[in-house]
Amino acid sequence: MPANAAFTDSTTIEKQLTAAREAIASLKGISRVVLTACGGSHAVMMPFEYFLDTNASSFEAKVINAAEFTSRNSSRIDESTVVILCSHSGTTPETTEAARFARSRGALTVAFTFDPASPLAEASEHVVAYQHGEGKSEAHIAPTLILRLVAGILDDRDGTTLADSATKATATLNDRAPAIRADYADRANHWGFESRREPLIYTMASGSNYGSAYSFAICLLQEMQWVHSAAIHSGEYFHGPFEVTDFDVPFIALIGLDETRPVEQRAVDFLQKYSKRALVIDAQEFGLSDVDERVRPVFTHIIFNIVLRAYADALADHRGHPLSVRRYMWRMEY
Amino acid sequence: MPANAAFTDSTTIEKQLTAAREAIASLKGISRVVLTACGGSHAVMMPFEYFLDTNASSFEAKVINAAEFTSRNSSRIDESTVVILCSHSGTTPETTEAARFARSRGALTVAFTFDPASPLAEASEHVVAYQHGEGKSEAHIAPTLILRLVAGILDDRDGTTLADSATKATATLNDRAPAIRADYADRANHWGFESRREPLIYTMASGSNYGSAYSFAICLLQEMQWVHSAAIHSGEYFHGPFEVTDFDVPFIALIGLDETRPVEQRAVDFLQKYSKRALVIDAQEFGLSDVDERVRPVFTHIIFNIVLRAYADALADHRGHPLSVRRYMWRMEY
Repeated sequence: MPANAAFTDSTTIEKQLTAAREAIASLKGISRVVLTACGGSHAVMMPFEYFLDTNASSFEAKVINAAEFTSRNSSRIDESTVVILCSHSGTTPETTEAARFARSRGALTVAFTFDPASPLAEASEHVVAYQHGEGKSEAHIAPTLILRLVAGILDDRDGTTLADSATKATATLNDRAPAIRADYADRANHWGFESRREPLIYTMASGSNYGSAYSFAICLLQEMQWVHSAAIHSGEYFHGPFEVTDFDVPFIALIGLDETRPVEQRAVDFLQKYSKRALVIDAQEFGLSDVDERVRPVFTHIIFNIVLRAYADALADHRGHPLSVRRYMWRMEY
Repeated sequence: MPANAAFTDSTTIEKQLTAAREAIASLKGISRVVLTACGGSHAVMMPFEYFLDTNASSFEAKVINAAEFTSRNSSRIDESTVVILCSHSGTTPETTEAARFARSRGALTVAFTFDPASPLAEASEHVVAYQHGEGKSEAHIAPTLILRLVAGILDDRDGTTLADSATKATATLNDRAPAIRADYADRANHWGFESRREPLIYTMASGSNYGSAYSFAICLLQEMQWVHSAAIHSGEYFHGPFEVTDFDVPFIALIGLDETRPVEQRAVDFLQKYSKRALVIDAQEFGLSDVDERVRPVFTHIIFNIVLRAYADALADHRGHPLSVRRYMWRMEY
């Protein structure tokens, strides 16, 4: 991606978001919302499938890898389908292809990307260009904007009143993010030091937090640290994965604030009994009482992402392996 | 589970399957089929979400962990929903709870279980009791029966003609399974020996084979061998996970016969270039030309399961760690 590309300004982003929401609201009817992307962007989408599935009364939601989505070639992808796509650079071929496929079927396509001039943006009907990196507005990053869009879809199609609360919650992030980073700095540093020679670190979560655990496993650990990992769904833990638990097997387990909290808590209770290397991050410490309780469950994952990034930064520092290093990506054709 | 419980006889199973199919056919309309279970049974369900999603024209399909399903409490679960559940012993509390939840919403519930007197069977409207273990009919195991049910749903609701081909294909399994086991015996033994000191083995697949890769990772490796693992979706591989690939990192990669074969092939091409420990199992060697090409893609995963079990048996043998050993499961309350 272009390292010194200018941000799309917040006013333009707000206009793009409004245009996408209005286009979806003006559709005669929608039967389904598909959220599709690859890797880290796929992980970004996961919490919103949860949010839609728990709140929608008139349409279905599915989250799916973009290559798999196009390959499936489902006849259900039609003009009553909204397809939301995401690619940071906007150059991911599978996601661009998914946009073309969806559009050829008459589905309404909305792309989230850093680069509004990218192939994905070109291939999609609507584009929301989010901010990223140093100096960004925390209220205008991918997850905050997708949250506001899906809350808007719910309000417009199913009569909920979630979008204003979502906007209000995300507007707090510019103050909240530095505070939460400061709050976790020492803990992250301690964990990074203690974990610096671990060849494998599992992550675990469920519900709207599974995407954060998945992202940490595949992007931060596998991709950016070459540390082995797997994201274990907390509801699957006792049905196989828990047998690898041992005193010296490291886990990062998330406990969020959504309907699956008891599922996450049960897995953590066991984990803490049999592993001495369990890092548990509990969203009850995030101080989110000001956030509308209907939005708080899904909003929580954005805070998890901020906190987890601090842990990844600390790990990278103590391992002397910058998060920016790759051995294959950007270095060769594949 | 009861070790010496008698099988439900094939005639009874056929009647149960017909009754479940007829009950679904007689519903006024169906909007969605939800496939829900935990762990290995969740994995059993995954290929059928793929099969339904690629073939259904009038309803949606979702596969989801049972604890997550109940927690979500979606208002879309109603009398136009068919919920298919699976638990081997029928005692999985989360799956039984999912059946109760679905039924309380008016959804039609069909349980697949070995034990027709189990809590899951009691909680569900319809039960199909499959066979398992020594002496079973390969045509009456969980995946063959679920395949036939979902093919029947597609035929009855969407006018396809898949069920007869599914039945015909599954009927070949009693001859095919021993032949395929014999065919892979030497290769499995060689791999088991070579892999006996590996602390971690990744699996990889996509589409209708992802469930087989997931099952091998969480049940055979993590649960039954205490070997670290993760099932990597082939379409996600290049978007993070591939950075852990190295000459000494072992993978089992599946290449199937469904629409995602090119996605799996692309990942394998890279993998084989950079890992000396890549085991690739290609379904083109399974000799499935007699199977209807519309059913062949999903049928393939049943053969993968048989082949993978041979590899797991060989690994267990060379590691001196029987597949039946557990350190937590069956040994304590959790």
